Parts: sequence; C-alpha cells; structure tokens
Amino acid sequence: MPDKPILSDARLSPTHAIEAVDEYGRSREVHVAGERPLTLKVDDREIVTLMTLGNYPEALTLGYLRNQRLIDNLDEIIRIQVDWDQERVDVSTRGGEGIQDERMEGRTVTTGCGQGTVFSCTLDKLYGQKLTALQVRQSRLYELLRVVNDYNAVYRQAGAVHGCALCRDTEILMFVEDVGRHNAVDAIAGMMWLEAVPGEDKIFYTTGRLTSEIVMKAAQMNISLLLSRSGVSHMGLELAQDLGITLIARAKGQHFLIYNGAEQITFDAVPVSKPQPRARTRAASV
Amino acid sequence: MPDKPILSDARLSPTHAIEAVDEYGRSREVHVAGERPLTLKVDDREIVTLMTLGNYPEALTLGYLRNQRLIDNLDEIIRIQVDWDQERVDVSTRGGEGIQDERMEGRTVTTGCGQGTVFSCTLDKLYGQKLTALQVRQSRLYELLRVVNDYNAVYRQAGAVHGCALCRDTEILMFVEDVGRHNAVDAIAGMMWLEAVPGEDKIFYTTGRLTSEIVMKAAQMNISLLLSRSGVSHMGLELAQDLGITLIARAKGQHFLIYNGAEQITFDAVPVSKPQPRARTRAASV
Repeated sequence: MPDKPILSDARLSPTHAIEAVDEYGRSREVHVAGERPLTLKVDDREIVTLMTLGNYPEALTLGYLRNQRLIDNLDEIIRIQVDWDQERVDVSTRGGEGIQDERMEGRTVTTGCGQGTVFSCTLDKLYGQKLTALQVRQSRLYELLRVVNDYNAVYRQAGAVHGCALCRDTEILMFVEDVGRHNAVDAIAGMMWLEAVPGEDKIFYTTGRLTSEIVMKAAQMNISLLLSRSGVSHMGLELAQDLGITLIARAKGQHFLIYNGAEQITFDAVPVSKPQPRARTRAASV
Repeated sequence: MPDKPILSDARLSPTHAIEAVDEYGRSREVHVAGERPLTLKVDDREIVTLMTLGNYPEALTLGYLRNQRLIDNLDEIIRIQVDWDQERVDVSTRGGEGIQDERMEGRTVTTGCGQGTVFSCTLDKLYGQKLTALQVRQSRLYELLRVVNDYNAVYRQAGAVHGCALCRDTEILMFVEDVGRHNAVDAIAGMMWLEAVPGEDKIFYTTGRLTSEIVMKAAQMNISLLLSRSGVSHMGLELAQDLGITLIARAKGQHFLIYNGAEQITFDAVPVSKPQPRARTRAASV
C-alpha cells in the first residue's frame, strides 16, 4: 500500500459572533457563518479559488480534485498544506507536474449552491459506470431523518450553510456543513477517498437542492440513494433517471416525495393519518 | 443615443410536470424547476456555461457580462441571440473582437448559490465607488415583505429556485426566479442595464443568503440596501461594511435582523408583543 498524503490540520472556527439590530431596535449578539477564500494550487499551478466555511479544508481540497477528476489516484498526492494567512492550499504531487492542460478545459458553471465549476470531462466518464441500487425501508428513512436533525450545529447557530451527511442505514458516518453545498459534498468525497470508504451501501443526505451537480457528484462517489430536505431540479432528475439513482426529496418529518426509484423503497411505515385535501394542490410548494 | 442591442425572446416554461411517489406510496403529479445549460459565446469565443431556469436568458446574458465586468458599455453589444436547441447564446459586439484576454484571467469560485465564477478584477474596481445610503422606514419594509410574498410563482409550484426582486419603496419593479440565485441577480442587472434603471433609490430583495457574491453584485448595480429572507455570511457582512451597504436578513413577517447600517432604518412600526426569552438564545436559528 502506498502512503497516504500528509495533510495539515487547519480547521477554522465556523462562526463569528457579531452585533445585529432586531425589529425592536435592540442590539444583540448573533452568529454568522464564516466564508473564506481558499486558492487551490497543485504544484504551484493555480486551479481555482473556493469560498468555504473552512471546517475541513484538506478534505475539501481532496474531494474537489477527485470530483473534478483532476487527479485519479490518491497516491499521486504527497502532501496537502493549508495556509489561511495566505488563503491558499498547496497540493504536492509525486511527479511534481501538476494537472494536465486538457483536464482544465471546458468549464461549466452550474446551479450548484456555490462552487459551480465542473469540468466537462466528468460527465462523459460518468456514463461509463453503472450504480447498484440500494433497497431501503421507509421506517429506516424516518429514523435517519430524526437522527440527522441533531447534526447541523453551524446552521442552528448561524444559518446560511448547507449540511451534507454520509449515512449507512441510520448511522451518520460523516457530517459536513459549508457555505456552499458543493463544498460540503466535496469534503465528504475527500474523506471517503482518503479512508477508502465505498459508496455503494451508503445514503447521501443533504439539506440543499438536488440539482444536476449534486447528482453528478453522488454518482462519482458510487452513491445510489440521495435524500434531501429541499426539492429537485429537472436536470437533476433526468440525470438520476439515466444513472439509476434513487432521488427522495422534500423529506421532513413524515413527508417525502420519491422522484426516481420508488421501487427501491419498502413502504413499511405508511403514516396513519390521511393528508388533507389541500396537500394535493400544494404538494410541491413546501 | 446609440441603438439598444437586438434581443431574441427565448423564454422557457420554467417548470415541468412529473410523477412522484409520496409517503403513502401514491403516485402523484408534482412540478419540478427546469435547469438548462446555456453556453455564452461572445463573437464565437466561449465564455462560460450557465445552468438556468431559462426564464430571462437574454437579460441573464446581459447581466452576466455586466456584473463580471466583461463588457462595460451597452452600445458595444449589437445582438443577443438565444438558441435552446443548441443550448447557446451568441453575443455579437460592435468591434467583433470579443472579450480581451486579460479580462478572462483569475477566476474565483464563490459560495453564491449557483454560478460561482467571479473574475477577480471586479473586486478591485468595486472599491473605487461609494454608495449613497438609503433611509427606509420599518413600516415600509413590512409592507414590501408582504407584497413580495405573492411573487414567487415558480417556487410555490416547484420549489428549488431562488427569487430576487428589484423594489422601489414597496413597489416590485422586477422579479426573477432561477435555479441559481446569482442568475436571478444577473438577470435583474441585465434588465436594469438595458433600461438604464438607476440602483441608488432601490431595494434589492432576495430569498437567498447574502454572501460576498451577492453583496458584490448589488454594489455593481449601485444598490445600497439588501433585504433577505435568509442569513448572511461573514464575508458578505465585511464587504457590506466596507462598501456602506445596509444588510437586513432573516426578514420574514415581522422579524428581521439588521446586520449593517441600522442607522438607515426608522423604527416606526416596532411590534407590540415582546419576544419570548427563548428568542434570545435561538436568535439566529431561523
């Protein structure tokens, strides 16, 4: 086994206490989420500047390189060094030759909450892989939604962040919040890569919307079931249909809507009370 | 006066009706927001691919070019032609020479919900300008929040979008929803540019978070008061402080928090009932 990359440990405190004035005209202390630029350099070549909460900068860097398919093998990376004073993270590779030019061409700015830059080659590669569907019971989904609810510490204190969780059944293996949802996804991808955690048997939970970008990233992590408190976009749905990814959205309490892959869910905990008639017309407005 | 650019009129229907399965195992029709790639080319040079709802593609194109400071004068643009079959928008300039190379260098991927690419030169230029503060009464803010609530048609039908509004006092002059909040802002900027609408006396409302990217775009539109249903990020706040922009966030019903510029607000409609003690500890958790 080759050595793992050497990582700095440069976590920032995610929130700042500041003074705000409320509707009564009273000044009071509230918290806001941090947001720091982090310029990613591979062997001194500048790749991108990410705006991040800074909670897991090394994992974010790893996951970004992985999900953008800029580096394929973990053992190509020797070291990841974050320097907040200079607002940069330096990645050193074994060959010292950085990223090939052809990998940097053709950027797409996506609707993903935040990042937005997806190199076009990623989509081509995606269609070569087939995901294994995961069968899940409704009762376990409800339990998972209950469990994950306790995790969003930054959101509860400061708002303005999205949370993402990697889950096995009802267990939360990783939980990351960031100002950009894509960053939280990338940080989890980075942790999975580093620890060689497989995605096949996992559920990916997010507080954010399921857009094409998030579905794409999930596919790259081999995760076939996405669960969101928010909605889905049409392109996210189409991509999920093509790749065989189960999409469950608007999941909150006992409510959810399965947008793709309903056959993967075992309805063993159907709520007792029938929904009100108005639920039909306002179905998608939550 | 030079001629205005000639624009195509290629608005897409923003939502799609699809079948989803709810928690009762019943299939039902719901709507999802559209999300389409649109590759922006200036005189055949590819600039970026935006993912958009497609509601105002021509205004989005204009606003993107303006807010990225890629084109400074409207009369440089002869024509904007959207072609959804080819998923591209062609911008023809008077000189036919496209965007200068130096304007394309140094991208920053931001936390902005969606887009994420801000060319670094924009920030440098920003600090050269000084915004004029706008004095607003609390009672008018409440009325504006009530009025704007009826506008988010796509969100109510399909969710997964952000809404932005350009307001004068309590009047909604423009309202745009998009899958990426930055797109909605850019589309409004494009409309303002096209119609030569000044920003000094306007309020900018958004359902999304006030991050550095949104504050930056507001400054570029000369808007000094931002109102959001969501929270603020620390960098958004710092930028607003530097530029003299009033930030009011978590605004919903009678609640709001003024993060910067409290002296611009006249408290003429302080709510009668005192908040509960628990509001203090959970102040920022809405």
